[in-house]
Amino acid sequence: MYIAMNRFKVARGSEKDFEAVWTNREIHIHKEPGFVRFAMLKGPEAEDHTLYVSHTTWENEQTFLDWTRSQSFRDAHKDAGKNKPLYLGHPQFEGFTAIESLVLEPS
Amino acid sequence: MYIAMNRFKVARGSEKDFEAVWTNREIHIHKEPGFVRFAMLKGPEAEDHTLYVSHTTWENEQTFLDWTRSQSFRDAHKDAGKNKPLYLGHPQFEGFTAIESLVLEPS
Repeated sequence: MYIAMNRFKVARGSEKDFEAVWTNREIHIHKEPGFVRFAMLKGPEAEDHTLYVSHTTWENEQTFLDWTRSQSFRDAHKDAGKNKPLYLGHPQFEGFTAIESLVLEPS
Repeated sequence: MYIAMNRFKVARGSEKDFEAVWTNREIHIHKEPGFVRFAMLKGPEAEDHTLYVSHTTWENEQTFLDWTRSQSFRDAHKDAGKNKPLYLGHPQFEGFTAIESLVLEPS
């Protein structure tokens, strides 16, 4: 299991606009090979921003990398620059590999 | 859906020890009401540390909060101080609520 997260510092007051951009986006990622699940997460509020994290789970890192090299990825990101005024700085990418012996499902 | 993450900056060279502590721990969290899934994630490496994230998904924030007030939580954390030499500073907690209209499962 591989989890790709992008951290967005959304300017205070722009939260609803940021969510609307994502809600109105045509998202095709769920058709990709190796895709497990996507969620947009709303996190802690700081003085000047609210942290949002786009959170995508893949079967493994390779399926994530394959997606980043696909036409589908380019299509999904072609308008991303337009949303820049809604957040501070650049989104920060962090990729994580699950330690398989430390994955627990409900008993 | 609510995701509770704790970020650990594990000192370079202590990664295997950190993983062993978690692997050898008796984890009972998967029996808790509202528990969805747990994973220990290994993330990017910096010069002085490797980022690890304990990543627990709950049905909602309330089931997470109920767990933090339980005996099970106290038992799980009673020896946590012993592992401090393995990481830099304190683990950093971040809690996230999923935006339900932006949760995607495979089609």
